Amino acid sequence: MPKNIIAASTSTIYGGTYLEYLLPELKMLFHNVTEIIFIPYARPGGITHDDYTAIAQKAFSKINISVRGLHTYKDATEALKVAQGIFTGGGNTFVLVNQLYKLDVMHTLRDVILNGTSYLGTSAGSNLCGLTMQTTNDMPIAYPPSFKTLGVLPFNVNPHYLDPDTDSTHMGETRETRIKEYHIYNTVPVLGIREGSWIRVKGKQITLQGDHTARVFKQDKEPYEIDSLSTIEL
Amino acid sequence: MPKNIIAASTSTIYGGTYLEYLLPELKMLFHNVTEIIFIPYARPGGITHDDYTAIAQKAFSKINISVRGLHTYKDATEALKVAQGIFTGGGNTFVLVNQLYKLDVMHTLRDVILNGTSYLGTSAGSNLCGLTMQTTNDMPIAYPPSFKTLGVLPFNVNPHYLDPDTDSTHMGETRETRIKEYHIYNTVPVLGIREGSWIRVKGKQITLQGDHTARVFKQDKEPYEIDSLSTIEL
Repeated sequence: MPKNIIAASTSTIYGGTYLEYLLPELKMLFHNVTEIIFIPYARPGGITHDDYTAIAQKAFSKINISVRGLHTYKDATEALKVAQGIFTGGGNTFVLVNQLYKLDVMHTLRDVILNGTSYLGTSAGSNLCGLTMQTTNDMPIAYPPSFKTLGVLPFNVNPHYLDPDTDSTHMGETRETRIKEYHIYNTVPVLGIREGSWIRVKGKQITLQGDHTARVFKQDKEPYEIDSLSTIEL
Repeated sequence: MPKNIIAASTSTIYGGTYLEYLLPELKMLFHNVTEIIFIPYARPGGITHDDYTAIAQKAFSKINISVRGLHTYKDATEALKVAQGIFTGGGNTFVLVNQLYKLDVMHTLRDVILNGTSYLGTSAGSNLCGLTMQTTNDMPIAYPPSFKTLGVLPFNVNPHYLDPDTDSTHMGETRETRIKEYHIYNTVPVLGIREGSWIRVKGKQITLQGDHTARVFKQDKEPYEIDSLSTIEL
């Protein structure tokens, strides 16, 4: 089956509830799916895996899909292999990637997504889709055995992309400065997606969706914007 | 000799030049010192080691101290052992720590600082003073063999500490949220120091200096502020 992926900047946009703005899209992404596996390991704020899964369940119940946490399976690899659909929630990317390596499911997850299992990632779950997690915004609160991630997208993602605040007197690096520093040492292109945007993969076609333009960063090139609904070719 | 350290939130405060606000302090920190070694490896924006060293030299020339980059020595370990003083500049903490491990100088740097070699760190150079670099704000653009750092301070540092922007509609994590997530998995206390603040170590005494309060984060405790000039006991 062709690839079928949504990698969203954020689970929740300002003023909305969890996944609310994405539900019409998720109906299509998970067409004919009755149950998905939720990967809760990024667990924002240290929320338990069960509680995080319940939040996902609450949103997906609105489109009649039931949700089961990957942590409840004895054999995570087997569970992913037969999953109808998969959703990785946001939180801390270091914790998420560390746990996926611990469970030794990174390769299986990649394989099933490449083979067409419908996949939703938000925030850390979108970072996971890139070639590496090296353009995450998160703090390195865990030490994963590798920064390599799924590579089901041919570039890296920077979710929650933020434009420089021109009024700021803060001397810490802007997001753009950080991603440019990434390209001093790395060649992988990076797509900065603002909250409310998502990357839609259908087979070989990758498009930008949602209300905003997205910012493309490539090594030795000036960053530029791409429009919503345009094909992403990095 | 007793420990003699300044770990500053930032090299430069808004509207000032490089190290300008710290120069009166640096005269005292590097009392009787004629030459320091500069560790340029964090190299912000990918600036060359030579160019970064020149920036440090320009500031230190105002207090009649000459600066030589660690990268210009054939034997970095020997150079650090006989240094009169050491300054680690800011930039990317992952790149910095990675390079110090590559050169195998982490232990030597720790030893000389514990033995009283005067040390200045700004931003990434202050992260380096903590027990681990796990409370850096930087992007993981390099993969160091360990997150363990010098441990010449008995806690971790979060430089460029930023209070939550209560007007923001951005859904990405606040700095406080990120540090609280760190404490889900780690016990080391964290001191968030705002731009214009620095940690001053003289022997066993550790005090907060500069214009601002600093924010203390401990596992399972509500964060709290400590006043400038107060002793830091975490």
